[in-house]
Amino acid sequence: MSTPPIVTTVKARTGGSVALKAGDHVSVVNVHGGQVVDSWAFPTSGEDPYEYMSMEHSRIHHYRLMFRPGDALVTNRLREILTFVADTSPGVHDTQCPACCDRSYRLYYETTDYHANCSDNLRAVMKANGRELAHVPTPWNLFMHTVVEDNAVFKDYPSKAEPGAAVTLRAEIDCLFAVSACPQDIIAINGDDAVPRDIELHHFPAA
Amino acid sequence: MSTPPIVTTVKARTGGSVALKAGDHVSVVNVHGGQVVDSWAFPTSGEDPYEYMSMEHSRIHHYRLMFRPGDALVTNRLREILTFVADTSPGVHDTQCPACCDRSYRLYYETTDYHANCSDNLRAVMKANGRELAHVPTPWNLFMHTVVEDNAVFKDYPSKAEPGAAVTLRAEIDCLFAVSACPQDIIAINGDDAVPRDIELHHFPAA
Repeated sequence: MSTPPIVTTVKARTGGSVALKAGDHVSVVNVHGGQVVDSWAFPTSGEDPYEYMSMEHSRIHHYRLMFRPGDALVTNRLREILTFVADTSPGVHDTQCPACCDRSYRLYYETTDYHANCSDNLRAVMKANGRELAHVPTPWNLFMHTVVEDNAVFKDYPSKAEPGAAVTLRAEIDCLFAVSACPQDIIAINGDDAVPRDIELHHFPAA
Repeated sequence: MSTPPIVTTVKARTGGSVALKAGDHVSVVNVHGGQVVDSWAFPTSGEDPYEYMSMEHSRIHHYRLMFRPGDALVTNRLREILTFVADTSPGVHDTQCPACCDRSYRLYYETTDYHANCSDNLRAVMKANGRELAHVPTPWNLFMHTVVEDNAVFKDYPSKAEPGAAVTLRAEIDCLFAVSACPQDIIAINGDDAVPRDIELHHFPAA
C-alpha cells in the first residue's frame, strides 16, 4: 500500500464496484462522514455462480454480531473472501439489516414514488459487471450504527463515522467488491441530517 | 383446526415438506423434545422464482432478534408468507444461524466423512418438489436455543423444548414449507444428549 490508490468516487444514492485480486486491498472512505455504505463481495471463480459473502455465515464463523479488524469474512460456502484489516471509524458496522428496496420505502415510510435504494444499486452494479444475481444478500452495512439492545431488539442511531473514516479490507480470493452509498433520507441513519453523500473506494492492487 | 391433521413424520437427520395453501395451518411437533428443526418457506407463486422466507427481512420487519406468536414472517420481497400463531415450547427459536452443511462439520468439528446436514436435506426436499434453489436461505431454527448475550456474542444451549412442544404457523400465501430435523450430533444443541430425533408436521388444511 505504498503506491497511490486507484480512487473511485461513488456518488450519493448510487452504487459502485471494484474488481479485486487476491492480496489486493480496498479502503471504503467516508469522505464527508456519517454515510452508511452497504457492501457485498462475490467470488469471481468457484463452482457456485451464486456464491456470496455471507453475513450470517461470517457472524457464526466468529460467534459475534459484528466484526473486528483481524476477522475474516466468509462466503455462504464458508470460503474466506475478505479480511477486515483496519478501521478508523468508531467501529460499528451493522450485519443485520437487509438492503433497502423500493418496497421497503413504500411499506415502512409510505413513499408513493420510486425511491433510490441499495438493492437496485447492487442490481445495476452486477448487471454492469455481467453477473447474475438470484437474490440480494444481506450487505455488510459499513458505518451503520444499528445495534442490538437488551439482547433482543434493534435500535438505529445516526452513523458516528467522522469525515475521512475508512474501513480497509484485503481480498483473500479474486472477487467483485460492490457498494451502495445508501439513499436513505427519511430516517436519520446517514448522519444526523439524513443527507446521503458521496463516498470513495481506494483500491491498492497487490502487484 | 377441528378435523384431524395430516401427519408427516420427518425422520431424524432428514428433511420433509408440506405444500400449504393460504389459510392452512401447520404445526411442527417436537415429538421427543430437544430436537432443533430448521425451517424454510418458499412462495409457490409470484414474479421471483428465488423468493424465500427471509430471517433478515422478518427480523427488521419487527425490529427484534426473535419472533413471537402474532408476528408475520416475510419474504425477501417483503410479502407476508407465514404467521406465527401459537407456541407450546419455551419460545426460543434462533433466527441467526445458517443451516449446517458438510463443510461446516469439516471446518468446525474436523469430521472427515460426509456428515448429514440441513443444507443437503433442504436441497433434497426442493429437488423432490421440482424447485430450483440458488442458495440455502437462513432457516428459522425452531426450538434452537442459540441466543445473543451481552448484546454482542452468540451462545448455544441445548434445546429446552419438552416432548410434544409445538410451533403452529398459518400460511398467508400458497407456499412450500420445508424442514430439516437437524443432524447435529457433535455439540449439544439437540438436547443435552446431542441425539437427533424424529419430528412431525401436522397439516391442517383450511378447506
